[in-house]
Amino acid sequence: MSASKKTAAADDPKDRFIKIGIIGGGQLARMLALSGHPLGINFVTLEPAADACAAAVAEHVIGDYDDRGKLEEFASKVDVVTYEFENVPAESVKYLSEKKLPVYPPPQALAVSRDRLKEKTLFRELGIPTPNFSAVGNIEDLKTAVETIGLPAVLKSRTLGYDGKGQAVIKSKNEIENAWERVGKVDCILEGFIAFTREISVIAVRSREGEIRYYPVSENTHKNGILHVAIHSPNDPLQSLAEDYGRRLLEHLDYVGVLALELFVVDGATLMANEIAPRVHNTGHWTIEGAATSQFENHIRAVAGLPLGGTTVPNSCAMVNFIGEIPPAASVLEIKGAHFHDYGKFAKSGRKLGHATICRNTRNDVIAGVDEILALSDIS
Amino acid sequence: MSASKKTAAADDPKDRFIKIGIIGGGQLARMLALSGHPLGINFVTLEPAADACAAAVAEHVIGDYDDRGKLEEFASKVDVVTYEFENVPAESVKYLSEKKLPVYPPPQALAVSRDRLKEKTLFRELGIPTPNFSAVGNIEDLKTAVETIGLPAVLKSRTLGYDGKGQAVIKSKNEIENAWERVGKVDCILEGFIAFTREISVIAVRSREGEIRYYPVSENTHKNGILHVAIHSPNDPLQSLAEDYGRRLLEHLDYVGVLALELFVVDGATLMANEIAPRVHNTGHWTIEGAATSQFENHIRAVAGLPLGGTTVPNSCAMVNFIGEIPPAASVLEIKGAHFHDYGKFAKSGRKLGHATICRNTRNDVIAGVDEILALSDIS
Repeated sequence: MSASKKTAAADDPKDRFIKIGIIGGGQLARMLALSGHPLGINFVTLEPAADACAAAVAEHVIGDYDDRGKLEEFASKVDVVTYEFENVPAESVKYLSEKKLPVYPPPQALAVSRDRLKEKTLFRELGIPTPNFSAVGNIEDLKTAVETIGLPAVLKSRTLGYDGKGQAVIKSKNEIENAWERVGKVDCILEGFIAFTREISVIAVRSREGEIRYYPVSENTHKNGILHVAIHSPNDPLQSLAEDYGRRLLEHLDYVGVLALELFVVDGATLMANEIAPRVHNTGHWTIEGAATSQFENHIRAVAGLPLGGTTVPNSCAMVNFIGEIPPAASVLEIKGAHFHDYGKFAKSGRKLGHATICRNTRNDVIAGVDEILALSDIS
Repeated sequence: MSASKKTAAADDPKDRFIKIGIIGGGQLARMLALSGHPLGINFVTLEPAADACAAAVAEHVIGDYDDRGKLEEFASKVDVVTYEFENVPAESVKYLSEKKLPVYPPPQALAVSRDRLKEKTLFRELGIPTPNFSAVGNIEDLKTAVETIGLPAVLKSRTLGYDGKGQAVIKSKNEIENAWERVGKVDCILEGFIAFTREISVIAVRSREGEIRYYPVSENTHKNGILHVAIHSPNDPLQSLAEDYGRRLLEHLDYVGVLALELFVVDGATLMANEIAPRVHNTGHWTIEGAATSQFENHIRAVAGLPLGGTTVPNSCAMVNFIGEIPPAASVLEIKGAHFHDYGKFAKSGRKLGHATICRNTRNDVIAGVDEILALSDIS
């Protein structure tokens, strides 16, 4: 322990506390702020919506992500910047960097994650298996790609895709034209369709000093292209392989913060990378109650230059998303081992309004708990 | 599961969320608000200080606790009221009750806990052992009490005492006059001095429906009359006795919320009640990371009329207070299993500025961790 470590921190909290700026003011920003306040960190969010749900726990700057004046105001208030979504305008990140404000995760991670072609190309370069893919810039490219990749295949816009948006499955050649229309005739990639047995994700965090920690992988199921249930998978046989792929990405990108890597499990033993998210991730929400340190706190620790916290998970746990509608808190909290999160957003079809976490002694008990929660949210 | 449970909650978050008013805006209010936001609860604090540390995570009304105008403003914003300290003016509580605002824990718990004479008398009525005591209203009473109780004894003001304030130890008869001066010649009780082997506390929570849950007891040590270290004591031989005493108080007071009961362990097997706190308590701060549901979240659940959460503690854990000065976050977080809390307050001698929690697999490992934290805060 060095002598300097024994010095007391500043008397004035303003001199002890750092301010983290978060681009975006949704539920991820909200949960980041809630996890960071105990550490003595204050938060400023930037988002166009006045009723951004993170505003209840952060200073909120209302502004477009590319509004120079608002960016300047936001930048003047903070010591370091992070973000809750990958579609942050590159120009805005460049502007913040010119202001000498550190942006974590680093801009190169944003550049890769918001462009599926760059992302898949990087997977390939790093020896991480990924479905066959081909760049598509026009209908002729698409027809050629279908010949190369084969059918079924999935056409995905290179940028701005999330929660299943900007995607079209092509099962036969007569669907090609229609798929091209549906994705909006934008730059795309065509991906070979993967017959996977499970979808998993690994959440990893890397500190400014290069230390890496991994959470146990999560098994994920989707509904209408949106994550619905994530179940913590302890001692997963593919844990170390998933960590190895995560490490390659984190080190190549000189990454700081939480990274989520989504993977398809093929034939029970092969992992194929689907995509990365350079941020805290919906499949890691169960770490709030389930892990020694949540993904949110570890992201904040990394961004703030603090040592990382433990990622062990003493119990079994899982998470269920509430999409479009949300049950009353009391009905969820009656369930043994359940925790409830209401993001404070207006209900709207397809919108993530909150989630429940369930922690119990065994995986079977957790799966039974997931069913109890699903029974509540199955209102139709 | 009743059909009504399957109804979705309101579309507008304003109609889903309740607002809890907290009298006081210090670290307890701050930690209450941080634990309640995920549940979809908003908070309004009332405190005279503009820089109240809870203001970062709550709407803050700046006002004296007995300022009618401010109380009216505060009351108009909230659905239910709780408090973070027991010296809330009785008149203010009466005013809020007249406004038909529920106040939890109930006013009778406040009345008992802010008056040591009422408190000790209630212990006796409920069959809970407590040190011998005698009411003291003047110097003659004190002299008589010394004859009855014997020496050494402790003279304590009936009201407004906390963190060792308003107390004077009397070891010999020639210290009587001086002790009377030191406590300020106010209404007091004289208590027999207890040769205890340990100080423990049990934290219990009771819901509006009367369900009670208990946390494992905490072993506590003080420094200059202020709590310094609290260590979770799993499978404590006195756990069930402590719970029994807690239950008697909770049921007698028709209590709602978290109650802390401080106890002296005498001869290893007898518990003597020292005092109660009708609120979340410093000896339960380790429940934030250590327990399935923290004391803060369970207090909020109780006050909001929600089902209580689990109180099991999967690991061993402990808490160290930072009093007067606080080490840098990084020096604490370097310690394995450590979590850090900075309340955001100006440093001042004797002031609680933050705390660290340590969670490890075994009690011995936790005690070693406490020593590592103490080494950091021992700056002198």
